[in-house]
Amino acid sequence: MATILTVDAVLLTLIESELHVALFKRDSAPFKGVWALPGGYVHENEDDHAGAAAARVLLDKAGVVSPYLEEYGTFSGPARDPRGWSLTVVYYALVPAPVLGSSVQWFPVDKLPALPFDHAHIITGVVARVRSKAAYSSLPVFLCGEQFTVPELHAVYEAVLSEPLNRANFRRKLEDLDILEEVPGATRPGIRSRPAQLYRLRKPYRSALSVRERGL
Amino acid sequence: MATILTVDAVLLTLIESELHVALFKRDSAPFKGVWALPGGYVHENEDDHAGAAAARVLLDKAGVVSPYLEEYGTFSGPARDPRGWSLTVVYYALVPAPVLGSSVQWFPVDKLPALPFDHAHIITGVVARVRSKAAYSSLPVFLCGEQFTVPELHAVYEAVLSEPLNRANFRRKLEDLDILEEVPGATRPGIRSRPAQLYRLRKPYRSALSVRERGL
Repeated sequence: MATILTVDAVLLTLIESELHVALFKRDSAPFKGVWALPGGYVHENEDDHAGAAAARVLLDKAGVVSPYLEEYGTFSGPARDPRGWSLTVVYYALVPAPVLGSSVQWFPVDKLPALPFDHAHIITGVVARVRSKAAYSSLPVFLCGEQFTVPELHAVYEAVLSEPLNRANFRRKLEDLDILEEVPGATRPGIRSRPAQLYRLRKPYRSALSVRERGL
Repeated sequence: MATILTVDAVLLTLIESELHVALFKRDSAPFKGVWALPGGYVHENEDDHAGAAAARVLLDKAGVVSPYLEEYGTFSGPARDPRGWSLTVVYYALVPAPVLGSSVQWFPVDKLPALPFDHAHIITGVVARVRSKAAYSSLPVFLCGEQFTVPELHAVYEAVLSEPLNRANFRRKLEDLDILEEVPGATRPGIRSRPAQLYRLRKPYRSALSVRERGL
């Protein structure tokens, strides 16, 4: 019996301050036509490693080129796939905007449809990891566009962590992280206040993340 | 071509305040007779998941039953194994004492012999993870025996982090973590001081870790 070795990608974004996950309708058996995580077999003849397989799958199925693709972990066993003993390596990425191809739709992570395999379990794990990492990392910055104000970033961190964050503490922690720089001369007009300075990730932390329309 | 799916275990301990890793002499090709990480194929007919395969391999090759087996991540690609495209899931565990079977030896992590596959790379990654996790977790406690004094635990954290830690800060952070409890009535005799209270992990964090002689 051949080992089933797959990858799955959990793509997250914020829509109206709620985390959403990208699902696509499976185009082949098993579970054809069912909403599921973008995933697929590792192709030994073209994938340099499992992470490359995940990037290929994301590009093919969701039209996304994501440079920030982090390994979450593996899920394996005899019962999770009807085809036999399988292992999947799960990767996740945070993207600023839900610009995806027509076969992919965004679902709120707490209102998912019935999912095949152990995909519900996988999403629960990844969301918990993102929330626990958010408190001490640059991770949520990838949910913003390339440039953003501190109040905008503050709102993103609050949305990911699902709790209010003291503004002064937030600014101080951001300074501690030392990952942002001012965009020279760039501001966002204020409504009733003075224009707000725009920031971006400093180069070593910057994402070249880009999103393109589904190519297939 | 069948996919090669393996697990590898990185077992770490402290010997004279230095992190050591357990290696064993491979008993079959490729690299027969060469020091390497304990590892092996996933057995689909007996392993409930990849973590179970790692536990089985550790028990068979190193004689260790370890309840704290954490997944580090995967390493994969066409070049890391001469037999073909392979993926290994790496697990790690910290053990209090180097009591292992005769085929396993401990090597200081910064004085390793030449290792096959990408095992040197794997060990470097796991050691970095353990050091970065040590600063904010109970992880190093697993390097102590079941009972220990706070000065003993302080020395273990210093050894893992490779840096001196202020004693008062250390005690305060330990209290914040809230993972220890006094062992009622148990003390260690002091040399020139009063007896030191012994502590252990509180039940939810306690390891039932046990080490036994190699069974094969």
